[in-house]
Amino acid sequence: MSDWVVGIDLGATKTALGLVDPIDTIIARQRIPTHADEGPQRVVERIVRSIGELERELPVDTAIGSIGICTPGPVDHKAGTLLDPPNIPGLHNAPLGQMLGERLGLPVVLEHDAKASALGEYHHGAGRGERSMVYIVIGTGVGGAIIVDGELYRGMRNTAGEIGHITLDPLGEPCACGGRGCVESYMSGPGLVHHYQHALERAGQESSKMPITGELVTRRAAQGDPVAQQVVARAGAALGTAVATMAMILDIELYVVGSSVARAGDLLLEPARQAAPKYCYGSVGQRVRIVPAELWDDGPILGCAWLARQALRDHPAAE
Amino acid sequence: MSDWVVGIDLGATKTALGLVDPIDTIIARQRIPTHADEGPQRVVERIVRSIGELERELPVDTAIGSIGICTPGPVDHKAGTLLDPPNIPGLHNAPLGQMLGERLGLPVVLEHDAKASALGEYHHGAGRGERSMVYIVIGTGVGGAIIVDGELYRGMRNTAGEIGHITLDPLGEPCACGGRGCVESYMSGPGLVHHYQHALERAGQESSKMPITGELVTRRAAQGDPVAQQVVARAGAALGTAVATMAMILDIELYVVGSSVARAGDLLLEPARQAAPKYCYGSVGQRVRIVPAELWDDGPILGCAWLARQALRDHPAAE
Repeated sequence: MSDWVVGIDLGATKTALGLVDPIDTIIARQRIPTHADEGPQRVVERIVRSIGELERELPVDTAIGSIGICTPGPVDHKAGTLLDPPNIPGLHNAPLGQMLGERLGLPVVLEHDAKASALGEYHHGAGRGERSMVYIVIGTGVGGAIIVDGELYRGMRNTAGEIGHITLDPLGEPCACGGRGCVESYMSGPGLVHHYQHALERAGQESSKMPITGELVTRRAAQGDPVAQQVVARAGAALGTAVATMAMILDIELYVVGSSVARAGDLLLEPARQAAPKYCYGSVGQRVRIVPAELWDDGPILGCAWLARQALRDHPAAE
Repeated sequence: MSDWVVGIDLGATKTALGLVDPIDTIIARQRIPTHADEGPQRVVERIVRSIGELERELPVDTAIGSIGICTPGPVDHKAGTLLDPPNIPGLHNAPLGQMLGERLGLPVVLEHDAKASALGEYHHGAGRGERSMVYIVIGTGVGGAIIVDGELYRGMRNTAGEIGHITLDPLGEPCACGGRGCVESYMSGPGLVHHYQHALERAGQESSKMPITGELVTRRAAQGDPVAQQVVARAGAALGTAVATMAMILDIELYVVGSSVARAGDLLLEPARQAAPKYCYGSVGQRVRIVPAELWDDGPILGCAWLARQALRDHPAAE
C-alpha cells in the first residue's frame, strides 16, 4: 500500500490534478481542459494521461495507492457516479469512479466538490483542530458541507447543507428554485451581478460595457467602487443571517467561506460577522466565527487526497 | 437488573411520573405539584415519595432498575444538572440527577424535556420506524430536538435545535432574543396571543375580557372563530417556512409537532404543509412530512424510560 495519492478536482471547464505525498504536500500538478461535451470515455482518458505525467514525479520504488476525484454535485458517492450536475450535461450519470478505477487498477473515491473542499479545509486549512465546521462555497450557486466530529453529515439522501436555498425573506425576490428570498439570490455570483446592475441603474450610472461577473463585482469592491462595496456588504449581511440560522439549528461555531466571491475578504465577511450575532439567541452568537478558506484551489485536491487515503484505510484489501 | 423503569416529566408547575414495564407500557402514574420555589431538597423528597407509590404497582419480586427525568432546558445532561430554565428559578443549578440517584440508590438520567419527548415519539410515537426526525415543541417558546439515525444530535454545546430563533424575516418584529422575525414571534403561545389581539383590534372587535392564552386562540380557531383561524394559519405558514429551512440544512424528512398549540391540528399543520415545499429546493420539499405528535403527555415519560434503560445498557455495572 502506497501513501502517495492523487486528488482530482473536475470542474465544468477545467480539471486540476495534484500528486500528494504521504505528509499531504502537493508535489506536482496538472491542469487540463475538462471537455465534458466529448463524453466520459474521453474525459477519463485525458485524466489517465495526466496521472501518467504525475507518476513521473514519484520517488523510485513508489506507486500511487489510490485516487480521489470530486465533481460538482449532485453525485452518488457510494456508486462513484455523477448524477445530473447542471453545468456538466456531457457527464450525466457517468460512472466516473468505476471507469477510472478499472482503467488504473486502483481504488477510486468520487465525492461532491463542496464536500471534498470542506474535508480539505477541515484537515489542512481553516478547520484544523476543530471538532465541527460548516464549509460555505459561493459561486454560480451557493452550496455547503457540514462536518460533525470529523465526519461529513450527509442527511437522509446526501443533500444536507443546501444552504443556498435557506429562505432569508419569504417575500423576497423569486429564486430559480421556486422559492423566494433565498440566500443564493443575495450571495451567488449571478445574485451579486443582478444587485450591482440594479444599484448602478438606481444611481443613474450606466452599466459597464464589459460583461459583469460576480468576480468583477468583488474586484471592483476591493478597488473602492462604493456601489460594488454596498452590494458586497449586503451579500455579507445575508451570509451572516444564514450563518445565524445554521448556528441555531446545528450549534456549530466555525463557518469557512470559500470560492472566488469570498476573495472579497473582509468586505464580505465583516458585515457577515456583524449580522450573525444579531440573529442568534443566547451565547451562540458570540461563539460563531466566520473565516475565509485558507486553501482555495488546493482545498478540493487535498480533500480528495484525504478521501483516497480513507478508502485505503477502510478497504486495505483493495490495495 | 430490572427492566422496569420510571420516567419523570418535571414541569414548571406539575410533575408527572410513570411506571413503565419492560415492553414500554405505562402501568401506573403519579401527578404532583412541582413547587420548585421550595428548593431542590423538597422537590426531590416529593418525587421520591411518588416513586414509592409507584413501587406498589410492581409485580412481586421485581424492582425499579433506573430512573429517567426530564426538565425544561437548559440542562447539563452529563452532570444531571438543571442550568437556568427561566420558568423554574427555584431549581437553578440543582444537581437533581445526583440527588435523586443518591436518595434512591439507582442510576438516574436527566435530560432536556424536548429531547426526551423527541425520543419518546421516535421510539413509540410518530417517529416509529424512521431513521431521522425533528421534534418541534410549541409552547411559551418554540424548541426542538434533532434525532439522526437514532441518536440525539446535540451540537457543540448541546444547544442544537434552537429552532424558535430561526430568522424568518430579518426586518420582522423584534424578538426577546434580540433578533427580529424569529419563528417564535409567529408561533409561540405569546406570539399567537399578540397576533390575535392585534387582529381583533384591526377588525374593530373588542378584545375579550378573559385572559387570552395560546391555547385559547387555538381552541377558538377549532371552534370556527375566523380571526383565530387566520392567526393560527399564519403561524402554520411560519412553521412550514422554518421546516423548509431545516430540510435544506439537515436533509431530514419527518417533522413531528408537539404541545398544546399543535392540538390545533390541521388548522396549523395544513398551512405548514403547503408552505414547506414552496421554500425547498429540489425534491426535498416533496419528501417533507409534517405530522402531529402521537403521545402528547406520555412522550416525555416514555422518552425518559428509554433513556433510563439506555443508562442500564451502557453502564450495566451501575446495577
